[in-house]
Amino acid sequence: MKDIQQQITPVNQDILAQAKAYTATLAMPSRAMGELNTLSERLCAIQSTLKPSVDKRELFIVAADHGIYDEGVAPYPQVVTMQMMQLMISGRSSACIYAKHANAGVTLIDIASKGDVVLPSTLTSTFYDRKVARGSANFAKGPAMSREEAVESIKRCYQIASQHIKERGLNVITIGEMGIANTTPSAAITAVLTGLEPEAVTGYGSGVDKDGWQRKVNAIKAGLAMNKPNKDDAIGVLAAVGGHEIGGMAGLVLAAAAHKVPVVLDGYISTAAAALAAMIAPAAVDYMIAGHESEEQGHKHLLAMLGLKPLLRLGMRLGEGTGAVCALPLLELAAATIGEIATFADLGM
Amino acid sequence: MKDIQQQITPVNQDILAQAKAYTATLAMPSRAMGELNTLSERLCAIQSTLKPSVDKRELFIVAADHGIYDEGVAPYPQVVTMQMMQLMISGRSSACIYAKHANAGVTLIDIASKGDVVLPSTLTSTFYDRKVARGSANFAKGPAMSREEAVESIKRCYQIASQHIKERGLNVITIGEMGIANTTPSAAITAVLTGLEPEAVTGYGSGVDKDGWQRKVNAIKAGLAMNKPNKDDAIGVLAAVGGHEIGGMAGLVLAAAAHKVPVVLDGYISTAAAALAAMIAPAAVDYMIAGHESEEQGHKHLLAMLGLKPLLRLGMRLGEGTGAVCALPLLELAAATIGEIATFADLGM
Repeated sequence: MKDIQQQITPVNQDILAQAKAYTATLAMPSRAMGELNTLSERLCAIQSTLKPSVDKRELFIVAADHGIYDEGVAPYPQVVTMQMMQLMISGRSSACIYAKHANAGVTLIDIASKGDVVLPSTLTSTFYDRKVARGSANFAKGPAMSREEAVESIKRCYQIASQHIKERGLNVITIGEMGIANTTPSAAITAVLTGLEPEAVTGYGSGVDKDGWQRKVNAIKAGLAMNKPNKDDAIGVLAAVGGHEIGGMAGLVLAAAAHKVPVVLDGYISTAAAALAAMIAPAAVDYMIAGHESEEQGHKHLLAMLGLKPLLRLGMRLGEGTGAVCALPLLELAAATIGEIATFADLGM
Repeated sequence: MKDIQQQITPVNQDILAQAKAYTATLAMPSRAMGELNTLSERLCAIQSTLKPSVDKRELFIVAADHGIYDEGVAPYPQVVTMQMMQLMISGRSSACIYAKHANAGVTLIDIASKGDVVLPSTLTSTFYDRKVARGSANFAKGPAMSREEAVESIKRCYQIASQHIKERGLNVITIGEMGIANTTPSAAITAVLTGLEPEAVTGYGSGVDKDGWQRKVNAIKAGLAMNKPNKDDAIGVLAAVGGHEIGGMAGLVLAAAAHKVPVVLDGYISTAAAALAAMIAPAAVDYMIAGHESEEQGHKHLLAMLGLKPLLRLGMRLGEGTGAVCALPLLELAAATIGEIATFADLGM
């Protein structure tokens, strides 16, 4: 991880100060665009320019399966992970449709699914089979994965995102995931990092009932008791109670930060990944934009811990990156706010 | 008004029920897109189709000046109304830049400004000079306008929007305004319609200080005492303490409803107009979409009265239609949610 950590430095504070001063000269009442003014200044600082661009966009989706499924924490069978991946590579999942409308391409990374997608003759999305494992282990009974697997999940996705950013000149990335049962490891990670009780950070995921919710809480408590993760050790937490796609998304976040590109987070699972990325490289937070606040009750606690304010609150809870992609047009308008709106001086006023 | 009222009927309840049933078949956890599912169903009901479209877009901006300016309620001089209109016709105002990014055209209607714009050789926006007056009168000392002027403001904008919708096949419109001092008549209208005290519905507009805020409150109190508007008489309220662009935007809302096109509201001033439109034709509410909640404290009360939930809360307070335009990409994603996302049956699941 040292090589990755060394790539990540805080955003440009000089440009941030210049951007704030420039905002004050725009031909509008002071900061009348509210959060869009703030976002525009952050984009300047991230990209080290007063004319930020977010026109080269990609949604990276990382997929994996989860041993904790065996504890009865999810209402859908595990095969749905593979079925959804199959839909994604042909551009038919919800997130792919949203991405098309938001002018973003889609790259799917299979980091640890149990199945194998069947490649069609024409791919709508870019696809990488980079399996570290065929699903994680049941963390109620032992660690979800080894430390080596945890590191490998991060590094493989870091490398893919870094390559795309460099070769294609991406200037914003969004992240999402697919993995039946993955709100349970996300809640476990949140409980460890925030110190909150599992009950306070566990939600209804893709739609468990009250009994299912209790099974999630019980599985998390068992996992924490069994694996005793150290909250100051990101790799240890990921290995103990995480999931491979969570590691993968942490890698995506670190790649964005290393290449000075904004990364739009999606819901609970991607924000759990971002929180681990922030432990690995604290400056990575500078590059994170919270696309939305999901319905999962733990999400707001993670966002607060990271100091991120979500752009949207629409009661979404699908994942895959849908909420992150919804925020892309707001990034475009934020970039236009500082890049295109006239100043009082321009207008001779 | 009778002729307009007769054109406006509630949205299609059969299609609404069909849309809700269809949403339940989408290949996602139940209503996992949250507000976007609800919005998609509303678009279906408005357009009487299960495949709604919002690709033909126009931002209509209505401009006027206000006699209440004389009470010291605004921090900018009145000439700014004309200066901003000049910027708008050449596509350089904030709202025009946002509209360009949101693929919306711009039509500016001068309904009662004090000045006259100078037309450049090439217009970026469509422009109509349809002055009913050169500014309203100071409503602290008498009615803002006659009932005839109030009706004329509504009708002229109704006619322009109706013509554009019919001739150009617009399938969504957004509304905005320009008019120095126009948060004061908006707060006066809100006080009348909600019964709340002026202090509770008056904000800081484009940036008055505490003394300026008090002058706004005093002006509204004086206006209500002087003109005694009857809260059940929309034309009377508009004439007593309104403004011509508020009447004009009410006309735009009524035109959208009459032609079964969704209308995205902007901030406080456009929502005051929408509230008057709802008094004239209660079914018009079915066609209204609240683009955002502005920083003006009275806005949330008007939205609650209309039963509208804003899509965005970004602390914006510019007006011109900027907040409404920001919501257009969400309408597009909502339309795609019901129009393009696969069902479980499509997938053989």
